[in-house]
Amino acid sequence: MESDMSTSTTTSNREVHLHSRPDGKPSPSDFKLITSELSPIVEGEFLVKNKWMSVDPYMRGRMKDGESYVEPFQIGKSLEGGCIGKVVESQNSEFKEGDYVLGNLGWREYWKSNGEGVAKIDANLAPLQAFLGVLGMTGMTAWVGLKRVAELQPGCTIFVSAASGAVGSIVCQIAKANNCQVIGSAGKPEKIEWLQDVAKVDAVINYKETNNLSDALGKAAPDGIDVYFDNVGGDHLEAALDHLNDFSCVVCCGMISTYNATEPSAAPRNLFKIIGKRIRMQGFIVRDHMHDRDDFLREMTTLIRDDKIHWEETVTDGLENAADAFIGLFDGDNLGKSLVRIK
Amino acid sequence: MESDMSTSTTTSNREVHLHSRPDGKPSPSDFKLITSELSPIVEGEFLVKNKWMSVDPYMRGRMKDGESYVEPFQIGKSLEGGCIGKVVESQNSEFKEGDYVLGNLGWREYWKSNGEGVAKIDANLAPLQAFLGVLGMTGMTAWVGLKRVAELQPGCTIFVSAASGAVGSIVCQIAKANNCQVIGSAGKPEKIEWLQDVAKVDAVINYKETNNLSDALGKAAPDGIDVYFDNVGGDHLEAALDHLNDFSCVVCCGMISTYNATEPSAAPRNLFKIIGKRIRMQGFIVRDHMHDRDDFLREMTTLIRDDKIHWEETVTDGLENAADAFIGLFDGDNLGKSLVRIK
Repeated sequence: MESDMSTSTTTSNREVHLHSRPDGKPSPSDFKLITSELSPIVEGEFLVKNKWMSVDPYMRGRMKDGESYVEPFQIGKSLEGGCIGKVVESQNSEFKEGDYVLGNLGWREYWKSNGEGVAKIDANLAPLQAFLGVLGMTGMTAWVGLKRVAELQPGCTIFVSAASGAVGSIVCQIAKANNCQVIGSAGKPEKIEWLQDVAKVDAVINYKETNNLSDALGKAAPDGIDVYFDNVGGDHLEAALDHLNDFSCVVCCGMISTYNATEPSAAPRNLFKIIGKRIRMQGFIVRDHMHDRDDFLREMTTLIRDDKIHWEETVTDGLENAADAFIGLFDGDNLGKSLVRIK
Repeated sequence: MESDMSTSTTTSNREVHLHSRPDGKPSPSDFKLITSELSPIVEGEFLVKNKWMSVDPYMRGRMKDGESYVEPFQIGKSLEGGCIGKVVESQNSEFKEGDYVLGNLGWREYWKSNGEGVAKIDANLAPLQAFLGVLGMTGMTAWVGLKRVAELQPGCTIFVSAASGAVGSIVCQIAKANNCQVIGSAGKPEKIEWLQDVAKVDAVINYKETNNLSDALGKAAPDGIDVYFDNVGGDHLEAALDHLNDFSCVVCCGMISTYNATEPSAAPRNLFKIIGKRIRMQGFIVRDHMHDRDDFLREMTTLIRDDKIHWEETVTDGLENAADAFIGLFDGDNLGKSLVRIK
């Protein structure tokens, strides 16, 4: 029987498809878990079983048609994203069975590759999933934003929105390690506590308990702010513009407040302040800076060894729950890096 | 009689006071023409009779209380601004009777000075009033924005809003002289004609005759734009963000669309595009770049000599009409530089 033959060569694979383009906030019905067959590897290829996958706000952009800087996801096709897996079968001399690898084919159990765009990772250096977070894309996004975009100077005052998130939490701690004053905003008491007790930022704002975010920021930063690390956009950017100093900088990393907007988002209504204050607003994406990855890894592992960086993970178990983990990002469910562990 | 004595020593002076802070668009009643007496000059001082004064959109910011990057104008005190005058009396060896000078005490007939912040001008080089425009603050604003902020590269595509205005008209022509593709927007047929026939820009948009500014810009710049020189903000900035290329730049020079806003201005609602396109938005003000003034004057006089720069002036006669000239800026009345000639 043909099915007997294929048992040994093809792989039954569960994967999450984009079922429909979300209108506003994504809903579970926009995703569909399906089972497919992965054809056998050929010479030069290897087969990976995913252990971890990342869910990140930027993926929302790829769910729109033609709206983002990376190719949009296709309806009826698998989603993609950062993942860590183990090589379980190989006909490639560089990637051996048992190797752990970092790839971009999350949202599925198995994938195969010829090695292009795949990196081996040293499982002795840190827990596997750290290579999706503090030592991966989110950690490097924090580092690039501060070191390469803001050109952070010791002693400056920095405001970080979504400060307990995957990127924000690392931003806060790199800035503290560089002797900066750090003000973080978040929307839940446990996040505020973490920022105070673990990240040890200088001031915190619970924006959900604040009537006037600009006033709250003004009180937290009476001498103004020199860098605003923006993960949120909207009202946070507006508040920051009120208190940014002359010749200051806005690192435009994310604007999660606008990603699900079906109506055009309002604000910031005070953008004209960019002129008088000679503000530089700079957008960036981490993949333009991959030539700096060695510098990043060296600095970040040193910071971790010196106990300067702590990180949290919000782990969801099971590929079947990946869509919920993603959707939860927009409810502020996560503290630190959101991950899905795949059995 | 005391009045006889003072006739020879004090000067009867007409000046325009800020009578009330404008609410929204300034109205004539916000200004008051008064007559005062200027006390006699003393050793080291000189007396100037103004010949020309400048009206500029940025002055609107100074009419708000504490809202701008320069000290706000005070109610019941004279307004200030760029002016050209002639020294009519002097006890200062560097400024002699008959010298023409550039100062910042417009909105009045006479002023005195010890020379601080005052520059002599060479009346042989260009018409006097050019030192308030193409060879003055507005021309230098255009030059600094392109050369120092955008770091303009030959061959790039640039979009200029308020393109026939004092700054925009010079921006367009410097960019053309640097072999750039230039798209200009303006709101009146005679401005559009001037941009086509005199500034010789590559494409024009009459934004008042356009239902969808973003679509119009997309048609004018099918390959996208590399620099947006923003004098307007609001809908123009939003349209530009739609069509800016990756790694492009927004020179934030002015946002006249928001200056009179009593309600917070909406837009740009697509600011998140700054991230994916890695856009740099940079605010600037010309006075930070005064160390470059010699470079500016050398380059600009060369461009003028080579017939690369033409300029227009919208002249209003009489100090008593200065407020109307200023208010007209917000109606788009002016082509090129708005000036008031003082008898």
